Amino acid sequence: MLVGALKKLKAGIVGATGLVGQQFVAALQDHPWFSIERLAASERSAGQAYGSALKDPRTGATRWYCEGFPKREVLELQVEDASKMDCSGLDVLFSGVEAEVALKLEPEYARTTPVISTAAAFRYEEDTPILIPAVNDQHAEILRRQQERRGWRGFIAPMANCTTTGLAITLKPIQDAFGIERVIMASMQSVSGAGRSPGVLALDIIDNVIPFIPREEEKVQAETLKILGKYEDGKIVAADMKVSCTCTRVNVSEGHTEAVFVSTRKGCGVEDVKDAFRKFNEQHAKSKLPSSPREMIVLAEDPFRPQPKLDRDNHGGMATTVGRLRRDDALDRGIKYVLVSHNTKIGASKGAVMVAELLVEKGYIG
Amino acid sequence: MLVGALKKLKAGIVGATGLVGQQFVAALQDHPWFSIERLAASERSAGQAYGSALKDPRTGATRWYCEGFPKREVLELQVEDASKMDCSGLDVLFSGVEAEVALKLEPEYARTTPVISTAAAFRYEEDTPILIPAVNDQHAEILRRQQERRGWRGFIAPMANCTTTGLAITLKPIQDAFGIERVIMASMQSVSGAGRSPGVLALDIIDNVIPFIPREEEKVQAETLKILGKYEDGKIVAADMKVSCTCTRVNVSEGHTEAVFVSTRKGCGVEDVKDAFRKFNEQHAKSKLPSSPREMIVLAEDPFRPQPKLDRDNHGGMATTVGRLRRDDALDRGIKYVLVSHNTKIGASKGAVMVAELLVEKGYIG
Amino acid sequence: MLVGALKKLKAGIVGATGLVGQQFVAALQDHPWFSIERLAASERSAGQAYGSALKDPRTGATRWYCEGFPKREVLELQVEDASKMDCSGLDVLFSGVEAEVALKLEPEYARTTPVISTAAAFRYEEDTPILIPAVNDQHAEILRRQQERRGWRGFIAPMANCTTTGLAITLKPIQDAFGIERVIMASMQSVSGAGRSPGVLALDIIDNVIPFIPREEEKVQAETLKILGKYEDGKIVAADMKVSCTCTRVNVSEGHTEAVFVSTRKGCGVEDVKDAFRKFNEQHAKSKLPSSPREMIVLAEDPFRPQPKLDRDNHGGMATTVGRLRRDDALDRGIKYVLVSHNTKIGASKGAVMVAELLVEKGYIG
Amino acid sequence: MLVGALKKLKAGIVGATGLVGQQFVAALQDHPWFSIERLAASERSAGQAYGSALKDPRTGATRWYCEGFPKREVLELQVEDASKMDCSGLDVLFSGVEAEVALKLEPEYARTTPVISTAAAFRYEEDTPILIPAVNDQHAEILRRQQERRGWRGFIAPMANCTTTGLAITLKPIQDAFGIERVIMASMQSVSGAGRSPGVLALDIIDNVIPFIPREEEKVQAETLKILGKYEDGKIVAADMKVSCTCTRVNVSEGHTEAVFVSTRKGCGVEDVKDAFRKFNEQHAKSKLPSSPREMIVLAEDPFRPQPKLDRDNHGGMATTVGRLRRDDALDRGIKYVLVSHNTKIGASKGAVMVAELLVEKGYIG
Repeated sequence: MLVGALKKLKAGIVGATGLVGQQFVAALQDHPWFSIERLAASERSAGQAYGSALKDPRTGATRWYCEGFPKREVLELQVEDASKMDCSGLDVLFSGVEAEVALKLEPEYARTTPVISTAAAFRYEEDTPILIPAVNDQHAEILRRQQERRGWRGFIAPMANCTTTGLAITLKPIQDAFGIERVIMASMQSVSGAGRSPGVLALDIIDNVIPFIPREEEKVQAETLKILGKYEDGKIVAADMKVSCTCTRVNVSEGHTEAVFVSTRKGCGVEDVKDAFRKFNEQHAKSKLPSSPREMIVLAEDPFRPQPKLDRDNHGGMATTVGRLRRDDALDRGIKYVLVSHNTKIGASKGAVMVAELLVEKGYIG
Repeated sequence: MLVGALKKLKAGIVGATGLVGQQFVAALQDHPWFSIERLAASERSAGQAYGSALKDPRTGATRWYCEGFPKREVLELQVEDASKMDCSGLDVLFSGVEAEVALKLEPEYARTTPVISTAAAFRYEEDTPILIPAVNDQHAEILRRQQERRGWRGFIAPMANCTTTGLAITLKPIQDAFGIERVIMASMQSVSGAGRSPGVLALDIIDNVIPFIPREEEKVQAETLKILGKYEDGKIVAADMKVSCTCTRVNVSEGHTEAVFVSTRKGCGVEDVKDAFRKFNEQHAKSKLPSSPREMIVLAEDPFRPQPKLDRDNHGGMATTVGRLRRDDALDRGIKYVLVSHNTKIGASKGAVMVAELLVEKGYIG
Repeated sequence: MLVGALKKLKAGIVGATGLVGQQFVAALQDHPWFSIERLAASERSAGQAYGSALKDPRTGATRWYCEGFPKREVLELQVEDASKMDCSGLDVLFSGVEAEVALKLEPEYARTTPVISTAAAFRYEEDTPILIPAVNDQHAEILRRQQERRGWRGFIAPMANCTTTGLAITLKPIQDAFGIERVIMASMQSVSGAGRSPGVLALDIIDNVIPFIPREEEKVQAETLKILGKYEDGKIVAADMKVSCTCTRVNVSEGHTEAVFVSTRKGCGVEDVKDAFRKFNEQHAKSKLPSSPREMIVLAEDPFRPQPKLDRDNHGGMATTVGRLRRDDALDRGIKYVLVSHNTKIGASKGAVMVAELLVEKGYIG
Repeated sequence: MLVGALKKLKAGIVGATGLVGQQFVAALQDHPWFSIERLAASERSAGQAYGSALKDPRTGATRWYCEGFPKREVLELQVEDASKMDCSGLDVLFSGVEAEVALKLEPEYARTTPVISTAAAFRYEEDTPILIPAVNDQHAEILRRQQERRGWRGFIAPMANCTTTGLAITLKPIQDAFGIERVIMASMQSVSGAGRSPGVLALDIIDNVIPFIPREEEKVQAETLKILGKYEDGKIVAADMKVSCTCTRVNVSEGHTEAVFVSTRKGCGVEDVKDAFRKFNEQHAKSKLPSSPREMIVLAEDPFRPQPKLDRDNHGGMATTVGRLRRDDALDRGIKYVLVSHNTKIGASKGAVMVAELLVEKGYIG
């Protein structure tokens, strides 16, 4: 596609009434490359105008959880039944459904249409990349293999888990400059990461930390290795490093905080790592993707930063903010830092939109 | 002293109007071995009855921040000026003053009287132990050296930092059974750890994590090595291991949570570590110290535990609760777990009282 | 029943696996008058031992949300299907099911057995009292009418709404001493009032106040008038006063706070009201009901009290704490105050148990 | 002054390093009518560049608590000693100091210069207005009397208390249309209202409500009567109505929520009140003041609104959002509603800047 062409690409959103789907609407309704053409959700909402489907049946109040508000033309779109959707006329489909639903429906959509998904269902398939623009663009090539092997005209390109995203972005420049042997990470994740159904109850998190998020650690560990892996001979070879994490939930609405400890292969000082981050920023500052942040990594010099409340929205929630960068005393050639990443912006729908932009630029969509 | 003797030991409290001092009052007023004989605070409170000194001058309301309430005989004690206190008649003095004040006053007190302190001022002195009963009782012997060298009849025995306490307690059985090479820890600390003046402002911690606590990480690293060190030839030799931590503040009132990653020297499985914890509990179950918890370490099998809200008060806030014990994939011979420890009970005044009990039992006090 | 008799009354609990049902287990398992004989829940749990039914199928962890833990004999009770339960052998049934379920099942149970319910389903029926011991004990008499009219051997005695409870308790002595013309109340309610399914999401209440709780204000207004009404000629005549409230949800786990403004019929000073509260306390201090608090109303003199965190557990969560009692400048003969009442103790299961105790004492149960 | 003239008015800020002062910097640095010429603070900061004075001496980190960040030319301004400041060259001085300091310094400044103050020190003086643009613009005239009587070339124009502001704005259209007899209000105030020194400790407000804010209720009651009063014969005659409130603190960072109950003089329905609000909005929609919101009052139809998290920033924090408007059942001719007002925007510095704009437009400044 000619980037900047006058005609926008036709986009659909599945799971459009849910939290992730609403975020897709917010991210796409003024997008320079995509136009929202169709919306789909569960059978319950099908047949209603989007504006009606958002209404709480009990009180009549509109349940909209994102910034801004849908434009009239979006509110008037009729919601389709996701399980019966024929998306052959669309250029791209954004999917924000739960993993079990994704497992069933996304392959159907992919027969005709590129699917960008926030669900985990296909992340760990051999022929499927987990793309983060600026980190592993080259992995997109395996999509051709996916198409061939599965006989699809479209494909499924899933997003990384929201906790993986900031970690992988900050590890990438370190890996490139010094190599990585081990990564240990403890996360303090926001409640929005659990969504709204069921989500985290206030009763459980007031004055509390919950030290377990089912399946989260396995996802972060596996995804980090895959994302930082090499694309060779039509395969993604997992990075040769060790990753371990403990994921906890804290009383924060948005923005995941992660304490990261890294053992590098080549010795490096704190200033060397900052230089690697700056170089990484420079390389990607020229990105033409509309959602790409001016800086992939914001370096906070104030020792009390990054904080989720103050830093999650840096560069529209698309930057990863890093602070407290210092030597680590327990690991060989160790450095440690703290990062904050916006789990429902770069870590979810806005991040998925940026993946779609990358795939437009590379010619996989449109 | 004959434990269980009818006559109680005479105790004084310095910094009695502050938060830590109030906790000393709460911990001591019904203590079977100690009786509160004297209270001291800053010049401003001197001369008033304790009950009056606790009153907010603006509203007349009593500012009492702990469980229970002082008994009438304590409320009627006249507060002395800490800077002029002659404590030669006391068997033990509990000090809850700030570090800078401790640096000046505690040596004066120690000329005549054993001082148990929550301040950091003397923790890192060569002739001073950081005692945690059941972990390093033998280090008490260096107090004799301290007395000799400084010409004191009393001594200064400082408590560990509240974040060190739970970490050192859980590392001890692992060290004894398997040896420890490296420890990495990320803490999620409660706001009460910062006390009340100035303390953590609600404005700063609502919907937030603060990733830096000045000087905390250095304290935890140094104290852990010292506490787990060996007492040899009249010296404490720091443990031969590496410790690194990142300390953060979260929106929790009481109870520090720590994500711990350990590389042991001898390989061990998860069940081996549980056995080591259980054995440690058994060894100390017979402790005759009144403040000693029935279990030093509570093992939580529910993967969603330990949580500060639900577990900080286990065994009266004197137990360390451990959960999520599992293999670590990044460290060699690695295990990882999460702990919760009550920072203002075992981590402060109640912990200091338990240290005093140990020193009574060993003949250093009374 | 002879209070204090050796043989305990046989109690059943319906909705036993839910939050309210768990609280019934906690309130009853060591009760001097009742023994838990049977437990019922939805079909899904039926047939399992109670201990198994509490387990989270995903993680195997036991989901127990209350103080203490069920005793072995309770954990081993087999859960029955509530919709098929024949409770003819029980002396009393405690029902903690949702309103719609209560509407259907409670009349079935009441054919044979007294039902004490936390559901709103029958509260507004003419032949049904909303009992609060010490406030309107005499209303119990209408239960005889209910039995006659409906042909039941048992009856349904519903609890007041948790927000009504503290309000009615504090209004009662004022009404008796001075008469009441108008009541205005703004509540700041805790999230536990919404239960766990769906409950209040952390995402919605962090850094927030939610100014609407569906149907709550209507309940409080109607119930207050009924509870403070007179029992005359076999009828409850609603109190002749006006009540208005605005109910909001705040970021508190347990304990409802209410700002109350009252216009009395007879002029009265602040001290007069305090005297009325004290007299009310004295009258009920001799209550022989095991759950009755030593003081129905705790008067807080500190102007910064009552606070939900510090006062909700006064007298085991069964007292209503009142503070900031002062003249009101906008209402004629006005006084105003703030109260805190524990919404899941006196406002739910423990309160329901106290109602059952009253009905035992009066001969309606057992 | 010719509004829109090319030359900006010279503004100074006293208390510039504090929270309110920082908010003045944020509100003024891009203002179309004012330019920041001078900054003053306590002796401790005097002589330093503003950028240095903001630095935490312990960590070197810049302590900036507002949106955006000061521009370079502001950071380079040298901070003056407030107690020695000669402000004769300034067109207007914005004062964000504490009440006791204001009492002493503001009269000195007012000898030569108009002072717009967020402090309460002069609010209750007979010759001093409490201005809220769109509510009581005419009260500005009394400033002439203040100048005459005190022999000042400048004057002191204090802001309303942050809790009064939203209340008075919403009462004004009701008063004009129907008359007001009584007002009862219960507030749920955010912690930022208490500032940063000492501010509200997290320890005190986590899982809690604090039912008392010293002197707040008296301020709101007195200020509301004064603001809604008439300017007659050179005097402000307090409004003939009764106002009562209970002010509480809740766990919210920014934005005060108020439950308001009003007894009007003329009967009116809910729709009549909405019409009055809309008419009020229309009247002031044409305001040329740069800080004036497009709507003074935002009417929320969703019954779950207004919420501080979602509505405090409406129209840049300058609108008052009203919801849950309904009949009140306890008061004669009663209506009730809930409002949210941004306490540190319209309720503090941005509101003070709007007052200055009004006084420029009316010719009192410039």
